Amino acid sequence: MTRTLSGDLEAAARIGALDDGGISRFAWTPELREVTQWVAQELERLGLDVETDAAGNLIGRWPAPAGKAVMAASHLDTVPHGGRFDGVLGVLGAIEAVRILRRADFEPVRPIWIAAFMDEEGSRFGTALFGSRAFCGQDVSASLDARDADGITMREAMAAQGFDGDRVGEAARVDEVGAYVELHIEQGPVLDARSERVGLVEAICGVLGYRVALDGEANHAGTTPSEMRHDALVGASRVVLALRERAAARPELSATVGRIRALPGGTNVIPGRCEFTVDLRAATAGSFEAEQVWFERMVAEVCAEEGLTSTVDCDYAVPPTPMAPEVTAAIEAAALGEGITPLRMVSGAGHDAMNVGLYAPAGMLFVPSRAGVSHSPDEWTAVEDCELGARVLADALRRLALRTDI
Amino acid sequence: MTRTLSGDLEAAARIGALDDGGISRFAWTPELREVTQWVAQELERLGLDVETDAAGNLIGRWPAPAGKAVMAASHLDTVPHGGRFDGVLGVLGAIEAVRILRRADFEPVRPIWIAAFMDEEGSRFGTALFGSRAFCGQDVSASLDARDADGITMREAMAAQGFDGDRVGEAARVDEVGAYVELHIEQGPVLDARSERVGLVEAICGVLGYRVALDGEANHAGTTPSEMRHDALVGASRVVLALRERAAARPELSATVGRIRALPGGTNVIPGRCEFTVDLRAATAGSFEAEQVWFERMVAEVCAEEGLTSTVDCDYAVPPTPMAPEVTAAIEAAALGEGITPLRMVSGAGHDAMNVGLYAPAGMLFVPSRAGVSHSPDEWTAVEDCELGARVLADALRRLALRTDI
Repeated sequence: MTRTLSGDLEAAARIGALDDGGISRFAWTPELREVTQWVAQELERLGLDVETDAAGNLIGRWPAPAGKAVMAASHLDTVPHGGRFDGVLGVLGAIEAVRILRRADFEPVRPIWIAAFMDEEGSRFGTALFGSRAFCGQDVSASLDARDADGITMREAMAAQGFDGDRVGEAARVDEVGAYVELHIEQGPVLDARSERVGLVEAICGVLGYRVALDGEANHAGTTPSEMRHDALVGASRVVLALRERAAARPELSATVGRIRALPGGTNVIPGRCEFTVDLRAATAGSFEAEQVWFERMVAEVCAEEGLTSTVDCDYAVPPTPMAPEVTAAIEAAALGEGITPLRMVSGAGHDAMNVGLYAPAGMLFVPSRAGVSHSPDEWTAVEDCELGARVLADALRRLALRTDI
Repeated sequence: MTRTLSGDLEAAARIGALDDGGISRFAWTPELREVTQWVAQELERLGLDVETDAAGNLIGRWPAPAGKAVMAASHLDTVPHGGRFDGVLGVLGAIEAVRILRRADFEPVRPIWIAAFMDEEGSRFGTALFGSRAFCGQDVSASLDARDADGITMREAMAAQGFDGDRVGEAARVDEVGAYVELHIEQGPVLDARSERVGLVEAICGVLGYRVALDGEANHAGTTPSEMRHDALVGASRVVLALRERAAARPELSATVGRIRALPGGTNVIPGRCEFTVDLRAATAGSFEAEQVWFERMVAEVCAEEGLTSTVDCDYAVPPTPMAPEVTAAIEAAALGEGITPLRMVSGAGHDAMNVGLYAPAGMLFVPSRAGVSHSPDEWTAVEDCELGARVLADALRRLALRTDI
C-alpha cells in the first residue's frame, strides 16, 4: 500500500491520543518512544541509515559522495493536549519529501539527513529545545537535572530508556550540517487570514522575558485624593498601553503582558504594588537591543511620573536567529516552482531552527494554521497545505543537495 | 484622679492589644465586651443612665426636659490589627465632651445620648454597621446568620453573651434622635498634608462596587500580530486609566481598581479574559447616578474599540449620605469658637453616621490622621488634635442641646 503524508499524520496522531482529541507525547515517555520508533521504521523503509543519537534525536541518513549534509528536521513531542501538526508535520513532511525525491530517482550530491529532535516543547521537564541544543553542542547538563511533576530527573527518565545522560555530548554533530530546512505550521493567523499558502521565514524572533514589579503606596480607596495617590496598577496600565502602542507601530515587534497581580488586592485598597510579566519579541539583532533599552527607559519614565519605583528582572533574553539567504532562496525557488509566491514573514514562536541556525545556514517554511490556533486539539492545517509544504520542502532539499558551494 | 481623654485612649488601647502594637476587638468577643463594659462604667461615673440595647449598642443618657436627643456616637470594635483611634475616639471624645459640659455646669434643654455602636467594622462576620443599622430600624436579620471564620453565626455569638437575635428589632430608636454628631479620625491624608486640624464633613460618599470581566481572544504572544489581537488586559488598562482621568478631574469622585487578574495567565499568552474590581465613590446623589451611567458607557466604548465583550456586575451601590446643614453649622460654630476654620470635605470612608444620617440630621467632624494611615498599628492622631476634637464636639453638643427647633 502506498504511504501518504495524510495517512502518516493520521497514524502519528493515534500515538498519545487523548479523549479530547488532543495529543500528549512528552520527552522520554513511552508515547514519544512509540512514535519515534514508528518514524524510524518509515525512515528505514525508505532506505535511510537510521540511528538514535545520545540525546535521543532520531536521524536518518541518505548517503552521498561529498560535502556536508542537507538536513530537514523538526520534532515529534507535543505540549499537553497538543495538536497533530506542530512538529510532526516537519518530520513526516521530510519523509514525504524523501519519497518524492526517491520517486524521481534523485541522486543527491550531498547527504540528506531527516531528523526528529528530542523534546522541543519542554513540556515535561521545562527543558525546551533539548535535542537541538545537544545536536548543536550546547551544554545541556543543567537540563539533565531538571525534574518532572513526579520528581523524576531527566537523567533518570533517559536511563529508564537506556540512555546515559553523561554521554549527551556525543550528539554534537551540527558541524556536519551544510544547510537546514524546517517545515512547520505557522501557529499564527497571518497566512490563514490572508489566504496565503506558504510562509517564508526570514528570522526567528528573539524573546525577552521580563518580570516587573512597580511599587507605590497602598492606601484607602475612599479617603486618598487622586493627586495624592501612587497607584502601582495605574503605572502598570500605562506600561501595558505603551507596549501595545510600540508594537502596533513596528510589525516585526510583539509585546504581551500575560500575567498581572495587584497587591494587597483588596477591592477598596489602592494597589501599593503591581507585578506583571512582559514578553517582548523582536526579529533583528538591532531591534532586539534597541527594544531592551527602550523598554527599561519607558518603565522608568512612567514610574517617575507616577511616583513609583520599579524592579525589572530579565528572566531570559534569547537573541533573534536570522535565516540564511541561501537556504531561504532555495525554499523560495521551490515554492515558485509550485506556482506560489511565499509570504515573507518572521517567526514569533521558537523552533529547533533557532538553535541550528546559530551554527549552520538554516531556513524555515510555514503552512497555514486554521484561525492561527496551535497547542490545542483544534490545531488544524488542510491536507493540501501539508502536501504543498512537503513538495516545497522536497524541491528545496533537491536544490540544496545538488550544490557543492555551501 | 482626674480622668483625661489621653488617659482613656491609653486605657482602651490595652484591651485587645496585640504584640505588634495593633488592636483586635471584634463583634461579640470578650475583648469588645471588656472595652464596652469599661466605657459603660465611665458613662455611669458621669451620671448618665446607661443601657445596652438589644443589638449590643451601649447608650448613656443625660436626661433633659424636652425634645428629641442630641446624640454623639461612634464604635469600639476594630479591624484586625487595627489602630487606637478609629471609632474609639468618637466614643471617648464624647465622654470627654460630657465632662467638659459637666464642668461648665451645663444644663441641656434636650437629652444628650452618648453611644458606642456594635460592629461598625464587620471584621468578624462581614456585617459592617450592624449596630447602627439595627438602631435605625433596618432589617439586620441576614446579618444574624452570617458566620465567622470558625463557622459560628452571629446569632450564636450573641447568645453566648446573653443577647437574643430575635429581639434586635427592639434596638430601633433613631426616631428619638433629633441630631447626631460623630467625631472620627479622617483616615485619609488631607488634613495632615494641609496642616489643617478639623475637617467638617459635608457628605459621606456613596460607594459603587463593580466586578468587571472583559473577554477577548487568548492567542500566542509570538505569532499574533498587533492588529489581530483582542487583548483583554489592554482593554482593562484603558479602563483603569479612564477611571483615573475621570477622578482626577472631579475632586468629589474617587475611583480605584484594587484587584485584577489576566487569564489564562501564561507569560507568552495574550490575555483572553481580564477580571477586575472597581470601587467608585461619589459625594452627591447627582454624581452618584451620573458616574454609574458614565462608567458603564465608558467600558462599553473601550470594548467596542478593542473588539472585546464585557460583563459588568454591580455588587453594591450604597448612595451618598448628605450631612444636615443645621448639625454642620453647629460643628462649624464650635470650631470657630476654638479659633479654627474647619476644612469642608467629604468622607470617602463609611461611618455609622451614614446610617443615622438617613433618618436624623447628622454631622461629622474629622481630626487629622498622621500620613493618612488607618486600619494599622501605625494609625496616629496627636493628643492635642484629639482634645481639640472633643472640645469642638462638646460645644456642638451644647449648641444643639439648647435648641428646641430641630
